[in-house]
Formats: sequence, C-alpha cells, structure tokens
Amino acid sequence: MVATAAIVLAAGQGTRMRSRIPKVLHPLAGRPMIEHVLASLAAAGIEHPVVVIGFGADQVEAGLAGRVPTVRQEPQLGTADAVRRGMERVPTEARHVLVTMGDVPLLPAELFQRLLREQAEGEATIALLAASVDDPAGYGRVVRGADGAARAIVEHRGADEATRAGNEVNVGTYCFDATWLRANVGNVPASASGEYYLTDLVEVAAAGGRRVAVVSAPEAGLTIGINDRSAMAQADATLRARIISEHQRNGVTIVDPATTFIDAGVEIGQDARIEPFSILAGSTVIAQDAVIGPRAEIRDCRIGPRTRVWASVVEGSTVAEDVQIGPYSHVRPGCQIGPRCEIGDHAELKNATLGAGTRQHHFSYLGDSEVGERVNIGAGTITANYDGERKHRTVIGDGAFIGVDTLLRAPVTVGAGARTGAGAVVTRDVAPGKTVVGMPARPIELRRRRAELAAERNPQHGGGTPRPDA
Amino acid sequence: MVATAAIVLAAGQGTRMRSRIPKVLHPLAGRPMIEHVLASLAAAGIEHPVVVIGFGADQVEAGLAGRVPTVRQEPQLGTADAVRRGMERVPTEARHVLVTMGDVPLLPAELFQRLLREQAEGEATIALLAASVDDPAGYGRVVRGADGAARAIVEHRGADEATRAGNEVNVGTYCFDATWLRANVGNVPASASGEYYLTDLVEVAAAGGRRVAVVSAPEAGLTIGINDRSAMAQADATLRARIISEHQRNGVTIVDPATTFIDAGVEIGQDARIEPFSILAGSTVIAQDAVIGPRAEIRDCRIGPRTRVWASVVEGSTVAEDVQIGPYSHVRPGCQIGPRCEIGDHAELKNATLGAGTRQHHFSYLGDSEVGERVNIGAGTITANYDGERKHRTVIGDGAFIGVDTLLRAPVTVGAGARTGAGAVVTRDVAPGKTVVGMPARPIELRRRRAELAAERNPQHGGGTPRPDA
Amino acid sequence: MVATAAIVLAAGQGTRMRSRIPKVLHPLAGRPMIEHVLASLAAAGIEHPVVVIGFGADQVEAGLAGRVPTVRQEPQLGTADAVRRGMERVPTEARHVLVTMGDVPLLPAELFQRLLREQAEGEATIALLAASVDDPAGYGRVVRGADGAARAIVEHRGADEATRAGNEVNVGTYCFDATWLRANVGNVPASASGEYYLTDLVEVAAAGGRRVAVVSAPEAGLTIGINDRSAMAQADATLRARIISEHQRNGVTIVDPATTFIDAGVEIGQDARIEPFSILAGSTVIAQDAVIGPRAEIRDCRIGPRTRVWASVVEGSTVAEDVQIGPYSHVRPGCQIGPRCEIGDHAELKNATLGAGTRQHHFSYLGDSEVGERVNIGAGTITANYDGERKHRTVIGDGAFIGVDTLLRAPVTVGAGARTGAGAVVTRDVAPGKTVVGMPARPIELRRRRAELAAERNPQHGGGTPRPDA
Repeated sequence: MVATAAIVLAAGQGTRMRSRIPKVLHPLAGRPMIEHVLASLAAAGIEHPVVVIGFGADQVEAGLAGRVPTVRQEPQLGTADAVRRGMERVPTEARHVLVTMGDVPLLPAELFQRLLREQAEGEATIALLAASVDDPAGYGRVVRGADGAARAIVEHRGADEATRAGNEVNVGTYCFDATWLRANVGNVPASASGEYYLTDLVEVAAAGGRRVAVVSAPEAGLTIGINDRSAMAQADATLRARIISEHQRNGVTIVDPATTFIDAGVEIGQDARIEPFSILAGSTVIAQDAVIGPRAEIRDCRIGPRTRVWASVVEGSTVAEDVQIGPYSHVRPGCQIGPRCEIGDHAELKNATLGAGTRQHHFSYLGDSEVGERVNIGAGTITANYDGERKHRTVIGDGAFIGVDTLLRAPVTVGAGARTGAGAVVTRDVAPGKTVVGMPARPIELRRRRAELAAERNPQHGGGTPRPDA
Repeated sequence: MVATAAIVLAAGQGTRMRSRIPKVLHPLAGRPMIEHVLASLAAAGIEHPVVVIGFGADQVEAGLAGRVPTVRQEPQLGTADAVRRGMERVPTEARHVLVTMGDVPLLPAELFQRLLREQAEGEATIALLAASVDDPAGYGRVVRGADGAARAIVEHRGADEATRAGNEVNVGTYCFDATWLRANVGNVPASASGEYYLTDLVEVAAAGGRRVAVVSAPEAGLTIGINDRSAMAQADATLRARIISEHQRNGVTIVDPATTFIDAGVEIGQDARIEPFSILAGSTVIAQDAVIGPRAEIRDCRIGPRTRVWASVVEGSTVAEDVQIGPYSHVRPGCQIGPRCEIGDHAELKNATLGAGTRQHHFSYLGDSEVGERVNIGAGTITANYDGERKHRTVIGDGAFIGVDTLLRAPVTVGAGARTGAGAVVTRDVAPGKTVVGMPARPIELRRRRAELAAERNPQHGGGTPRPDA
Repeated sequence: MVATAAIVLAAGQGTRMRSRIPKVLHPLAGRPMIEHVLASLAAAGIEHPVVVIGFGADQVEAGLAGRVPTVRQEPQLGTADAVRRGMERVPTEARHVLVTMGDVPLLPAELFQRLLREQAEGEATIALLAASVDDPAGYGRVVRGADGAARAIVEHRGADEATRAGNEVNVGTYCFDATWLRANVGNVPASASGEYYLTDLVEVAAAGGRRVAVVSAPEAGLTIGINDRSAMAQADATLRARIISEHQRNGVTIVDPATTFIDAGVEIGQDARIEPFSILAGSTVIAQDAVIGPRAEIRDCRIGPRTRVWASVVEGSTVAEDVQIGPYSHVRPGCQIGPRCEIGDHAELKNATLGAGTRQHHFSYLGDSEVGERVNIGAGTITANYDGERKHRTVIGDGAFIGVDTLLRAPVTVGAGARTGAGAVVTRDVAPGKTVVGMPARPIELRRRRAELAAERNPQHGGGTPRPDA
C-alpha cells in the first residue's frame, strides 16, 4: 500500500471574479467549488489532501470546517512557494503527491488516477496534465522532446513563435515523486516579480535527466479553470449535465435537462419523472415512480414512491408514498407526511406529522402539529401556534373533520372523530366524537340550549338553531 | 385508390431505458412516443396501421386503447418475425406496406410518402430509408450497387473495413411491395442467435433481381431512435422546437423557445405572447393577443383574446376575453370565467361559473359555485362546499358584495346586490339587496335591534352599533 | 464639433411577422425593438435621429411618444424614397448621416462610430456595413473593386454566378456625406416595381468617381435583421446574453444564464446571486449580496443588500436590507419594506409600509397600510381596505401583535404594543397596549365582565373566561 497525498492550491484571490468571497468557496451544483476537487481526489483514493490557502483564509477554513488540513501561504509568493508550504503538511510516508488547483473543479477521479499511474508506473519524476485547446493564447505551452516527454512549460508571453504555434497547454495539475519534490521545490528560481512558479520544476527535472510524462486530457472542457463568473456558469452547467446524464442512465426521465437543476449527491429511483423548472437540492432522495414538478423545489427530503410534488417547495421533510402536493404549497422543515395524503393547493406545513390519507386543503397552515389518519383539514384552517413568545403544539385525532376557516389555538387537542364548525375558534380541547362550533368554539348541544333559553326570554327574536357547520 | 398499410414494430423492451414501462409508451411533448409515429403515418394517408407488441403487451394495448389493431409477437424472434406476425393483420387488398419502428418518433409524414412513391412509382420491391451520420459505429450500413440501388444491409459487427468506412446507415424504415413481402418474409434465414432479421430481406430481394430503392433522409436528426433517456430528452427537445417554430410562423411571439413547453395539438392565435417558463398542455386553445406567462401552466383550456394568465395554473376550464389571472392562482377543472374578470392573486376556483366583470381576490376559494356579474369576492372568502360526505352548491347573484373573510356554507344563495359583512359566516340564504353580518350571519337590522335591547337591559355596557362591514 | 444625424427606416410591415403590431414595436429584452437601435445611436453620439414610419404609423408614433422626430413615408416607394423623406427632417448643419434599419437591433454603438470615422476620416462619400455570412442566398452582395472599395450592391436575384459566389452581404446600414446624399438621393432610378432602392446609391457614387468604403462587421450575428418571430427570439436571446455577460463581469453570480431574464437597464451589485428561473425587469436595482430567486420576478424595484426574494413577485416597491420574502408572496406596487422584515410565505402587500423587523406571515394581506416596527402579523390576517367604493387606510403601531385570522376593517388604527385575539374582527381603533378579542373585537376586560354578568344570570351555563388569544 503506497501512501498518496494531494496539495490543492487555493490561495489566490481571483480578481476577475470581482468578489469579496474567496473564489474556491463559490458554489457549483450546490457545493463550494473546492469540494468538487476534494471529492474527485477522494474518489481517486488519495489519502492525504492538504489545501493551501491565502486570500480569505479565515473564510476558506470556515468553509472547509476542519474536514481537510489547511496551511496558510503568507505572503503569497507563487505556486512553487505554495506547494513548498503544502509539503509541510504532507506526511513523510507519502510517496506520490498530486498537485492541483482549487479552481479547476471538473477533473474526474480517473484523470488523477492516470497521473498517479503515469508517474509511478511510468517511472517518471513528474506526470503533468495537458490539454489541447482551440485558442491557446495566454496559456503556458507544454514543450515536448523527441521522446514525447515534457522538456519545459513556457509561459505565453515568454514563448517564441514556434512554441506559440502549439496548442497543447499546461493545466496546472501534476503528480510528483514525493521525495524529489520535497528536495527540489525550494530550488525554483525567482521570477522577475519575485514569485516562484511551479511550472519551472518541469525544466528543473528535465535538465536533471529525469522524465516528465505528459497525460492528455480526453476533453479540454474537463480542464476548465474558473477565472470569472462566466466560466463559473459554464462549469456549473457542465457539472449539472454530468449529474443529469447519470440519472438518465439509471432510468430516470428528465423531461428537459436544460431547465432541471439537480445537486451532486441527490438520489433518484427508476422511472421517476422530473418535469421542467425543477430543483432537487441537498441530500434529497426521490423514490421510484415519483413525479417531481413541473416547478418543484425540494431540498433535503425523502420523497416516496408515486408521490407527486407539483409547483411546490418541500424542505427538510419526509413524504411517504402516493402523496399529492401542490400547486403552490410549502412544506417547511420537520414534517412527516403519511401515505396517500393530499396537501394543497396553497397549503403550508411546518414541523407537522400527518397520518395516512389525511387531506389538508387550500390556504391552511399546520405548524407544530400532530395530525392523525383520514383527517380532513378545511380550507383556511390555521393553527395559532405562536403566542408572541413560544410555539405550542396542536394534536388532531384520527378521522377528525376540521371545518373550513377553523382556528386552532395551541396548545389544543381535537379528539378522534371530532368535528369543528366552519369558522370555529377552538381554544379548548375537543373530546373525541364531539362537534364544536362558534367563537370561542363550544359543544353544539350547549350552544343549542343557550339559544333556546334566549328565545324563551326574547321570543320576538326567533334566533334559529345553527346547523352543524361543515 | 391503392390501399396502403403500415406495420409498426413495438415489441422490444429497450433495456437501456432501464424502465418497467414499455419504451413506446414513454411520452414526448405530451404524447406517448408511438402516438407520434401513428400520427405521422395517418398524416401520410396510410389506411391500415398495425402495431406489433411484445414486451409489456398489456400496457401497450391499454395505452393504444383500441384505436389501432395490435398483434402480439411471442416469443420475440427478431424483426422479420415481427413483420411476419404483423402481416397477419394487414388486409389482403393492401398493395404497399410501410414498416417502421415505434421508437423512431420524429419521422415526418413526407418521408413516409417519399418511401411509398419510390417503391410504387419507382417500380422497386423495397424502398428503404437511409441516413448519413457522423459516427456510424454500431449501425447497419447500406451497401449500394453501381446503379445506386441497395444490395444489402450489413451489420456493423459483420462488416469489412471498406463497408465500415461508409456512413450511410439503415434507419429501419421501409416500404415493401405487399405481395412480395407476404411471400418472402418467411424466407429469411435464422441468425446465429436464432432470430430473423428484416434487414436480410434486402439481400433476398437484390439476389432475386429485384430493385431496392434508397431514400435518403434530409437530416439525420429526424431518424433518431430512442434507446435511452438521454435520446428521449433530445427527441423531446426536437419535437418541441418543431412545434414552436410552427407557432412562430403563425405569428405567435415565443419570448424564449428554450423555456417554453407546448404540447402537440395546442392552438395559439396571432399576436399572442408566450412568456418564459410556461407550459401549454393537452387540447388547449389560446386566442389572439392573449399574454400567457411568465410561469403559466395551462392544460385543456380555452383562453380568450387579450386575457393574461400570469404565474398560475389553469386546468380544464374556459376563460373569456380580457380576464386577468394570477399570480399564484389555481383554476381547477370545470370553471367558466366571464369577460373582464379578475382572479387573484392567490385565488382558487373549482367547478365554478363567474359572470362578466366579477373580481375574486386573495386567498379565496370558490368551489361548486355560480357567481353572477360584477360580484366582488373579498379576500379570504371561502365556500364550504364539502360536509365530509357530499359537495354542495353556492349561488351568488349579480352585483353582490362578499366581504372579506366571508364563509359561505353551501348549499346557500346570496341574492343579487346583497352584501355580507367582513368575517360573516353565511349559513342561510341572503335575500337580494340585504346585508348580513356576524357568525352565524343575520340581517343587520335584526342584529341592531338585539344590540339595542341588550343595551337597554345592561346599560352599563354601552355596546355600540356595528357599522356595516365591508 | 461636427453635427451628425441618423435616419432609421421603420416603415415596413414585416409581413413574415404575421402581426398586426408594427414590427419595430415588438419588444426585445423588455424594450421595443427600435429603442435598441435608438439607444445604440445615442451611445454613438448621434445628435439628430429621425425615424421614417409608414405601416402602423400611428402606433409607432405613440410608441415613440415624441422622444424622437418622425416622418411618414406615404406611399412606401422603397428605401431610397424613405431616406429622401427622412432628409426633410435632418438639420441642414448635419455633415454626416447614418442610415440604418429599425429592425436590425443588435448593432453596437461602436459599429456606428466606425462607419462615421470611415466615412469622415477616410474621405469616403459612403461607408457601408458588410457582413460575411455562411448562407448569403437572398441577400444583396457587396461587389468590391481592386482597391477594396465597393462598386455596387447587387441583389441576389440579379446577380451572376461569380457575384453569387461571394458571401459578403449588405446589412443596410451606411454613413453618408450629408451634402452628397441630399443632392443624390432623388437620382436613384426606379426599379421594375416602381420602387427606389437605397442600394443603388452605391453604384451612383462609384460611377461618379467617389469612394465607397466598406466596414466589415466583426460577427455576422450582430447584423441580424428581424424578419420573423424566430429571428426575434434569437435576437432576444443574444441581447439577454450580452446583458448577462456584463453583469458577470461586474461580479454578479448568474447561476444559469439560460434561465435568467434581465432587462436592459437593470443594475445589480457585486456578489449578488441570481438563481434560476428569475426575471428582473424594468428599472430595477439590486444591491450587493442580495439573493434573487430561484423563481423571483422583480419589476421596477429597489432591493437592499443581503435581501432574499424567493419564488415571489415584487413590483414597484422598495425593499431594505436583510429582508426575507417568499416563497409565493406578492408585493404589489407602492410598498416600502423595512430592514429585517419577513414576508411570507403566501403573503400579499399593496401600498403598504412596514417598519424594521416586522413579520408578515402566511395567507395575510396588507393593503393601504402603515405598519410600525417589530410588528407580528398573524397568519390569515386581512385588511378590509375596500368598502365597494373607496379604499381606506390601516395603521398599526410599533410592537403590536396581530393574532392569526384577524380582520382589520379600515379605516382603523391599532396602537403600539396592542394585541388582537385570534379571529378578531377589528372595527374600531385599539388603544396602545390594549388587547381586543371577538367579533366585533372589544377590549378583553369588557368581554370578561360581560361573561361574568351572563354567568350570574345563567349560572348553569358556566361559560368560562376566554384566555387572550395569540
């Protein structure tokens, strides 16, 4: 077992981003750019990643949250200097050291592995990654010898005509023999600006008679570096297309890939169907045969088989099978929605549990609630769960019928099979099977008796017995 | 009049789809894939289509719903065997038989007609459709003789270098002389795997001295076969772009074709404007000068001239001219909305009729209702149309003013010109021109007299006369 | 200072648009097509623009609203005739006259300036704009002499083989020496159809020994003419992409340019983030670090730093910093929303002012309202601001707590620190610090006393004291 390390260079500011946020923290497909680099390195089996930080170091450290060692480069004296600092955190047992850029987020694990193999098995001191591009202006050119090995990397501005004619450019990703790197990274000559460039190590190695292998990227698009917001949008699109292709191969229908946004890490079952204008974010799992969208936004949820989420937002919740949600509903975090429930349109839930077959209709809000099975929540029903200081719970039993525009002032319990009249303001618990009406809501028998008594006292007013509201 | 038939091959599973749904039932632009094939055949004037089914035969038969004859291929012994089975259902008077694939959905009627003409008028026994593709690997190559006629179709894996160098490939669509096909489809030799391939008929015909004409598809994109979900998404995009081009030619503004989804069969009038993120589905008709979107979803509706549907869902309803809907409104099936109505924002209707000039505002729900002209429906108004067992109707007369948060417990009628107070719970019919207030709502004169009587009895409480709510 | 003029030709009907609206009034990126032409001319420093109108002249004049002089071409006898009419409105002091088409909307100011320079400084009588296109069929070809100057423009149908082989076509944009143009525009021979073509002036000039310079457009896409709705959609996409690139260069993150619609003239601060499916329209200003979308629609608003607008519509309003809006909320025109407010989900405001830290929750509507700081607006709260005839104002003081489902019948004032019970129907002003409950809402002490009195009279009914609702 040979130990491998990686140094990710993430010290630069990226001035063309015109941002106060460190470049490597800008998100792509739902994750900071650098996380894509670290994920590819992990997938390639690299054991010891180190991130070299500089600009916005506190923010970057906070963003990485201790999941990977960091080292600060201060002052920032070029890429060779950054690697020299990174080597301080690379364990001495590491035999191969990948070096790559934190703002080159699309390199797949396979390319890192190829660099490792070329360096290790090809007996090269360095293996560098090259790309053939249509317009190489501005890039460092890879200069090869007759044997195909690299002799040097020549910056565009220092290149002669013949070298500029080449279109094989340096990506900035290498695998080094660790011992050689440790011994030589400090030997790079300073540039005119006083910085030390990693690219010069290629000439150092070649001049010392060592082999520098070249690995060609299969497509230049994979090697894109994020220098501005436009490149960032392109990389985001590439990542999303890659994610969508994978779901398609797994048997998911994506009606329109161009208007579907799926974060890395989302899981989707076979024969699920994702309609246009939908966003699946965070650690979301969609079961088979679900229909998502159009216009669904789902974040950190589990969605059950055959469930449909239509033109709604669902966050941090678990939704069982055969549920209908939407349109224009909002399931906020902490909900558990049972099988065959109907939510909406225009319904809102927060921190609520709904039993199987419960229906919650239009313009209703259930917050901090436990609702049983087969409950009917009438239109306009609202749980008053907040008294200005604390949140209180509402409990509704199986088979209850909550009339339209019912107001439930928590804490309150409505028993199984109970009914509330339309417009009832429920301020006290309702016993199972009972019907309450009015404001404040009281049992219907009591209301009736009061009305009869009043009629006896004032017979001219008639009054009339209210029927049970529905 | 020469009888023509077509055999559509739809027996395969399409394993790369990774689906439990038969491939030809997956929808494109709102219709099962095979319906596009059948529609093109119908447009080409083919009289006798037959679909050969196999995998998921019950589902496919259910999907076709008896609109086209089917025959089952069991076991599935290759395309020649499938055509042999299909011929059992082709009427004997048919003189020309088109054969095409159920998963090649973009072929236009014109190409089927060209095949028919080439076969019939060109005195060919077979006319086959060929496409020139950039990457022919994996496809059967069309091998032509010096006279331009086809000699054979050679599968990629059986082809020699010279044949592989060709990029003219077989699409799988043919027109046959019916008599010859009937006589020869059983003469195809079995392959090594025991299957019978239709492509071998080309060599059978050519060897027998018969002419096999080649029709070249004008663009290879039309001949795309759906083998996986990625190809399906591409075909969907192609179909949608085709539909949108047609509307553009008719004088419809599609602000952004890439984010507009219009099903086949939708009709749109001149100078209508479709804004981004909109979906027009089913048998929808949009009148001239309507403004649809952004973010509209309309299914099976008629939308009148100059009407605007903004960020709303409208289903199965008829909307007259000069109506404003949205944002965030939901018109559910069965509604008739009169001229100059205003719906929303955040309004919901179901099975409701609204007269001219009626306004239904925020967070209101009208279900199973007949509403007259020039009615004002206040915010939060809800029809309690469901008592847990049945739905009841609400009737509101012309010029009525329904105060905010009114609850209408159906069955109930509010007369023309009547008013309800804010928060009224209407449980009884309201006479024309009357004002009711309170919970339950009662005529305002009666309330006033009761309050006065109470004040006489308890003078210390004051009380005060409620003004008419609005 | 040399005076410059421009004649914009906008007389044609554009029959392939199939529209009753004059072509140049069709909007692109939120502005009528011709406004883009006029904006480029203004940016190029042209002092005296004139628009020649014909088809739909009244509509075009109304659309231009007097901001630019117009002249009518009636009857429409070709482009030379139109320029002749235009010259009637060009001031005599103008030395250089640009001529361009009202339906060629993507030409940047730089190209107009290059034409001016080429004509003025290159001592040319005419400088014409040419484009190299892949498929020149149908376009007029630029025929050059050995010196590179244009000799003639030859229409496609009149061109010989050699001329048709050329792919350098005439765009229809020129700069003329004003004196020469005035003298010669009437000398163009009539065509067979009786029309006078501006292109013939090139041959007139060249035959007279005058130089006709050719300016080549850097990309043909800039010279696109809008002849049908398809070209219009393409031009719209090009304009939008140009706008988005500019915002990206300024440090704005546009997650997905393809699903983001930003009108010309919108301003966005650094590190703002525009999520997919968003529309920024009109004269909108978004501050730095704001998060807009997904699914936001903002028109004519100022949005403060760090504010998030999520899946909501905001129109004609000012929103301060650190505000949360959405999802499914609608801020209608005339609102001022203070710092740290929370709006929604499912909230609606119109002509309302909210103080700092106020929270307006679900299914609530505030119209014509002044709301103080730190106010809590409960779910379902509705201002009844309309009595069928007039709109009235609602005033709510700092720190008030409006219980869920409160109905506020305007005109009404709720004092600072006051509370309303759940379901209260507030018809009278509430004093500061007081709590009101019931329908109609009355001070809680009064209700309590009445209940006690009733209990004394009818002790068997109990009654119970309502707790303060929340």
